[in-house]
Amino acid sequence: MNKKPLAGLAALLPLASCADKAPQQPNIVFFLVDDFGWVDSSVQYGEELYPNNLRFNTPNMQRLSECSTVFGNAYACAVSTPTRTSIMTGMNAAHTRITNWTSVTRDTPSDATGGGFWMAEHKGSGDAAAGDLLSRPDWNLNGISPEPGVPNTQYANSLVQYLKDAGYFTVHVGKAHWAAAGTPGVNAYNHGFCVNIAGTMAGMPRDYSGMQNYGNTKERWNDFAVQNLTEYYGTQTHLTEALTREALKALDYPIKHKQPFYLYLASYATHTPIQPDERFAQKYRDAGMDEGQAAYASLVEGVDVSLGQVLDFLEEKGIAENTVVIFMTDNGGNSENKQKGGVLHTQNKPLREGKGSCYEGGIRVPLMIHVPGKTQVGRCSVPVICEDMFPTILDIAGVRGYKTVQELDGQSILPLVTGVGKGPDPERPLVFHYPHKWKPYDLEDIDFLSAVRVGDWKLVYRIKEGARSSLESLYPDTRRTAREAALELYNLKDDLGEEHNVAADYPEITARLADTLSGRLSRWNASMPVVVQTGKTAPLPNQL
Amino acid sequence: MNKKPLAGLAALLPLASCADKAPQQPNIVFFLVDDFGWVDSSVQYGEELYPNNLRFNTPNMQRLSECSTVFGNAYACAVSTPTRTSIMTGMNAAHTRITNWTSVTRDTPSDATGGGFWMAEHKGSGDAAAGDLLSRPDWNLNGISPEPGVPNTQYANSLVQYLKDAGYFTVHVGKAHWAAAGTPGVNAYNHGFCVNIAGTMAGMPRDYSGMQNYGNTKERWNDFAVQNLTEYYGTQTHLTEALTREALKALDYPIKHKQPFYLYLASYATHTPIQPDERFAQKYRDAGMDEGQAAYASLVEGVDVSLGQVLDFLEEKGIAENTVVIFMTDNGGNSENKQKGGVLHTQNKPLREGKGSCYEGGIRVPLMIHVPGKTQVGRCSVPVICEDMFPTILDIAGVRGYKTVQELDGQSILPLVTGVGKGPDPERPLVFHYPHKWKPYDLEDIDFLSAVRVGDWKLVYRIKEGARSSLESLYPDTRRTAREAALELYNLKDDLGEEHNVAADYPEITARLADTLSGRLSRWNASMPVVVQTGKTAPLPNQL
Repeated sequence: MNKKPLAGLAALLPLASCADKAPQQPNIVFFLVDDFGWVDSSVQYGEELYPNNLRFNTPNMQRLSECSTVFGNAYACAVSTPTRTSIMTGMNAAHTRITNWTSVTRDTPSDATGGGFWMAEHKGSGDAAAGDLLSRPDWNLNGISPEPGVPNTQYANSLVQYLKDAGYFTVHVGKAHWAAAGTPGVNAYNHGFCVNIAGTMAGMPRDYSGMQNYGNTKERWNDFAVQNLTEYYGTQTHLTEALTREALKALDYPIKHKQPFYLYLASYATHTPIQPDERFAQKYRDAGMDEGQAAYASLVEGVDVSLGQVLDFLEEKGIAENTVVIFMTDNGGNSENKQKGGVLHTQNKPLREGKGSCYEGGIRVPLMIHVPGKTQVGRCSVPVICEDMFPTILDIAGVRGYKTVQELDGQSILPLVTGVGKGPDPERPLVFHYPHKWKPYDLEDIDFLSAVRVGDWKLVYRIKEGARSSLESLYPDTRRTAREAALELYNLKDDLGEEHNVAADYPEITARLADTLSGRLSRWNASMPVVVQTGKTAPLPNQL
Repeated sequence: MNKKPLAGLAALLPLASCADKAPQQPNIVFFLVDDFGWVDSSVQYGEELYPNNLRFNTPNMQRLSECSTVFGNAYACAVSTPTRTSIMTGMNAAHTRITNWTSVTRDTPSDATGGGFWMAEHKGSGDAAAGDLLSRPDWNLNGISPEPGVPNTQYANSLVQYLKDAGYFTVHVGKAHWAAAGTPGVNAYNHGFCVNIAGTMAGMPRDYSGMQNYGNTKERWNDFAVQNLTEYYGTQTHLTEALTREALKALDYPIKHKQPFYLYLASYATHTPIQPDERFAQKYRDAGMDEGQAAYASLVEGVDVSLGQVLDFLEEKGIAENTVVIFMTDNGGNSENKQKGGVLHTQNKPLREGKGSCYEGGIRVPLMIHVPGKTQVGRCSVPVICEDMFPTILDIAGVRGYKTVQELDGQSILPLVTGVGKGPDPERPLVFHYPHKWKPYDLEDIDFLSAVRVGDWKLVYRIKEGARSSLESLYPDTRRTAREAALELYNLKDDLGEEHNVAADYPEITARLADTLSGRLSRWNASMPVVVQTGKTAPLPNQL
């Protein structure tokens, strides 16, 4: 990737060609990292570089950032599957009703149980343990489906199918995690991919090491063992490296035969298990990091090297000037993971919390887009969200006038990159919804949260408090307190860390955002947890 | 597939097209069945229909045969990998030195050990047990490699790479089995495939049933569990059905975008495990077959239905008239398999023996080729062999003037199908070589055999007898007997079942064929087992 602006404008314009050929279409590389936080690189997404940025050496991300629009207010969902399915469908996760990660097996909720007061497994008849307040919501726990009629799925036309129909050679490499095994949605070929390497129902790898066959050994095998990498069994090849090599091989055909390609390279790194990548780990240990920190930094460096290999490849093949590169993460960094070492709940600072949460640490993510010769290089502060990727990518590909069975929620953010045309309104509401319990223990700043951002304002709805406030008979003394505790208002411009709840100071703004959030959740028939006492779903924020 | 000759001649001729487009190339479907014998269908490959043909109801194979050239004297190798690698390389198996099946793990001989007198594992220093005559040969036990320098492999350019380079969208579905895990040859993408579904180092499936996730369960997993079929986990979908569906999906892109395609659909059926396909098994049980026979017949019917689905698909898509279909098997039917029920060593009658053997039952296989509008429909008796498929397929694809790092042994048999041009000489020698021990017990008509066919004559070299005859000091009394026992001559025209050894009646023909076989094996530096007593390789037939 050249660091100076490229004179590649013509790449997107029609060339003299056969009558039956479409205008030359740009190649698109979507580089999606996993559980990789907003401050987990040396790239400055924020107004400044934060101390957490200094843990990482990521020269290739830096290199890409220097020719990209760097989005400082880009959002994903709080966990993996909802983001990945929003990208594929163009829908908000509250709208797909896929608000949690999909299990490897069909019809199996991933919602945690246990933890005492707040949660009980909802077994149809609401058999919560005594004292439990909420049980799990009814949600599309089987993920997305390219076919109608599959229980507990969102039926949708996939982004990738439109690309393939438009002539794109579409390649999936890495983590898919859109749907449970035994459903059509789990199969990348059903979503329009021409090639699928390693994409399954798994949301994590069984093992990152080729020496462990990526989990494909009698001793270690489970459904998270990574498929399609037999070449590297018994070798030192790290999973990130193996996936990168396979991805570049897959581009041989479209490059040779001048077909446009879409490469969706979705690294399993930096998800759990946080195993050290021994190509890089020692220097982080030597620098005084603990084993978990060093292991995590080594996984990050592996991803950075992978990105560099892709960028180098595009240049070597002479196609960099006609290849758009998108770099993004599926959710915020995981700050509730002891494997990462350090101190829990600090890794995303200055952002509050991490993966799983609707606070900024869980949802604000890295995003860079490079469109050769057309990029406004620098930071863009307009808030954007993962479902925008569907119309954005089709916009980049020049696919117009498509019709989808689903109602789209995203908007093209290409104008924010090129400066041509009108991008999303900076004041449009962005909705986040995690009506689930994440771990078998209680996590107050993660479990059962919704949020909406409008401009600099952000409302966080603590559903548990909302439910409690609705149970006057059960909690007569706490009703008013609970209602107040249910809605938090933050001004992100002044308070990026969401430390100062100003709901009491701005009751009208609080009410307006509560209405906005309620309206969206209501219109989308969003999943809500069930209040055990009443058997009804928890109230929306404007019903308190 | 229409039953009347098609007026599709123009399909192979240049059409008015863009200057940079090649002439329209025919699609090619190579339907390769596994362990499926010469008499395992209702198709008449022989001079007559034999009783064994009557066990099967295979209307789709019949349908294809009625518009194909049906080869009555088509040959493969005695076991799977050598045939598959000969197809990919155009080389005879004795020449690749891949004469046995490759193990799932690298550097691991698949040669059987045990069985007493004849065999000992050769552990470098020749530590055979007392009394053992032969130990395993040095052979390319890691299979083929698309890269030079990989130990114990044959480095070769793959057939598929040339097709891909010529613009073909190349699809692998099913069993690969060219190489061991941990080597580049195991990866279909390295051989020029654009898509690989389910092809690994495995030579058999862990399980045929979707209800068992094709072996991908904690209880059943091993390296033979089939990859890439997560969509069908926990469903009743039989492996053959799942592979067929995936194969047809993979053709969506090339059909839509008018790219020629090469579909290599290599069924895991009808290999062990002989599990009943419950879609079909009951009627065979009802007809009085034992459980093994019924299970095998049901696997065969599954393959027949799969072929029918492919043929139907080609017609529905309107591309049948530009699609060549090749139907073949990788080796003879397995007649040493109790899972198949019935009586051992009878299933290939009138042919002698079965899989593993250089007698006809192990190497004579079904082969049909349909070239739309150009096929001479009917039986062809010219002997042809698996390594012919490399130049034949490139001939069909119109790929000319290619250069390979390996020396090709096969010849195009397309002239035998179309009647245009000159096909192979009916008298050219065809060589078969299995210098291995197959099972942990002795199998006199399978272990350590070589053979050559020239016209109607066939010489079988029993290497064990040859070795014994060379050890005058050890076996002074038996030397002459052993030498006589080492070489058998059959006239296949009169004696299809190889029951009458006429070597003594035709010493000159015997000597000539022994020279021919020895010359080939010598020139190819073919693998030979080691005579334990001397530490030297067993003698060639003309050294007796």
